[in-house]
Amino acid sequence: MKLEYVAPQEIEQRSFEIITEELGDKKIPDEIRPIVLRCIHTTADFDYYENLYFSENAVRIAKDTLRNGAVIVTDTNMAKAGINQSALNRHGCEVMCFMSDPDVAETAKRNGTTRAATSVDKASMLNRPVIYAVGNAPTALIRLCEHIRNGTFKPELVIGVPVGFVNVVQSKEMLINSGVPCITARGRKGGSTVASAICNAILYMLDAESKS
Amino acid sequence: MKLEYVAPQEIEQRSFEIITEELGDKKIPDEIRPIVLRCIHTTADFDYYENLYFSENAVRIAKDTLRNGAVIVTDTNMAKAGINQSALNRHGCEVMCFMSDPDVAETAKRNGTTRAATSVDKASMLNRPVIYAVGNAPTALIRLCEHIRNGTFKPELVIGVPVGFVNVVQSKEMLINSGVPCITARGRKGGSTVASAICNAILYMLDAESKS
Repeated sequence: MKLEYVAPQEIEQRSFEIITEELGDKKIPDEIRPIVLRCIHTTADFDYYENLYFSENAVRIAKDTLRNGAVIVTDTNMAKAGINQSALNRHGCEVMCFMSDPDVAETAKRNGTTRAATSVDKASMLNRPVIYAVGNAPTALIRLCEHIRNGTFKPELVIGVPVGFVNVVQSKEMLINSGVPCITARGRKGGSTVASAICNAILYMLDAESKS
Repeated sequence: MKLEYVAPQEIEQRSFEIITEELGDKKIPDEIRPIVLRCIHTTADFDYYENLYFSENAVRIAKDTLRNGAVIVTDTNMAKAGINQSALNRHGCEVMCFMSDPDVAETAKRNGTTRAATSVDKASMLNRPVIYAVGNAPTALIRLCEHIRNGTFKPELVIGVPVGFVNVVQSKEMLINSGVPCITARGRKGGSTVASAICNAILYMLDAESKS
C-alpha cells in the first residue's frame, strides 16, 4: 500500500477533497457545510453527515457571539486543548474549563453530583456571553437545560455533543427541546474532538469572512 | 424519553454494562478486553470491536513498561490532556507532548515536514523508555517507522491510532509491519480520545493488578 505524497500544509485540504468526493451527490447547505465536513474530518465517520442538528440560525448566532468576543466554556480539558488558540486570539475570544478546579471537585462531592454539572453552575456566574461546548458529559447538558428552564443561565449557544451510553441520547433531545440555540449530534456519538472541531469550524468561518 | 438515574460514580460502570450487553455473544480475549471496551466507551462506536490490532504480547509489554516508570509521548495536546494524571502519578509515569514547542515548529518549517514528525525526532533524544501514542498525525507514525527501520529510535510500544483520510490507513499497516510492539485501529478511525483511552485502560489494568 503506497503512501500518497501530500505537502504538510495541504493535508487538511486534501482530506476535505476526499470527504467531498465520497459524499458524492449528498447535499449540505452552505451555512453548515464547513461544520459537517470538519466533524467528518475529525472522526473519519460519515455518520456526522446525518446526525448533526442545528437549531434555527444557530451558525449565525455562533458567529455573531464569537465576533463580539465570547468565552467558550468546555466540559473537558481535552476539548479546551483542541480549540485553536490563535484563532481564538484573532477574534478576541477565550476558552475556559472548570473541570480541574478544586472548588468544583469539592462542591460536586458535597452535592452528590458530577464535576461537569457543577462546572455549569460555576459558568453561570460569568456574566459574559458564553458558548458552552459539551463533548463528554450528558450531566453537563442536563444541568444546562435546568438552568435554561429556571432562567438562571442561558448561554448564547450550546454545542452539545456528549458521547456515550448513559443519558446521552436523552440529554441531546432535552437540549433540542430547551429552546436555546444549539448544535448537537443526535444519538450516542460525539466527543471532545467533535466539540472542538465544531468550535474551530466556526472560528475558521469567521476568518474566511474577515478575509473576503 | 426518560432519564435513567445513575449515581455519578456509577456512570462509567453502567456504560460498560450496556456495552457488554450490546456485544452479546461476541467474545473478546481477557488480555485486551478492558482496552476494547474503553475504546467503545470513548467513541460510542462498536467498530472498535473489530478494528483494534494488538501485536504479540503488546499489552504485557505496555504494562511492564508503565510499571517501571515510562514517558508516554503524545502527538497532540488533546491526547496529553486526556490521560489520567493521577493514574500516571500512581505508577511513576509522565506524559509529554512537543507539538507546541517553538523549536519543533521552527525545525518543521525549515525541513518542510510536519510538527508531528519533528516531535518524533525530538522524542528520539529522550534516552528513556517511551510509549509513543499517536492519535492524530499519520506523519508521526510514518516518521516513527523510519526511525525503527534505521535503528535510531525504538519506543517500547507504539499506540498508533491516527484518524483521517490522507495516509492514515497506510501508516497503520506500516506500523504493523515495522516489528515494533504496537496497538492500532486498522482503517481510518482513531483520534486523540482513542489514544488516551488506550493509555488509560492500560494504567487502570495496572491499578487493578496492584490491588489484587
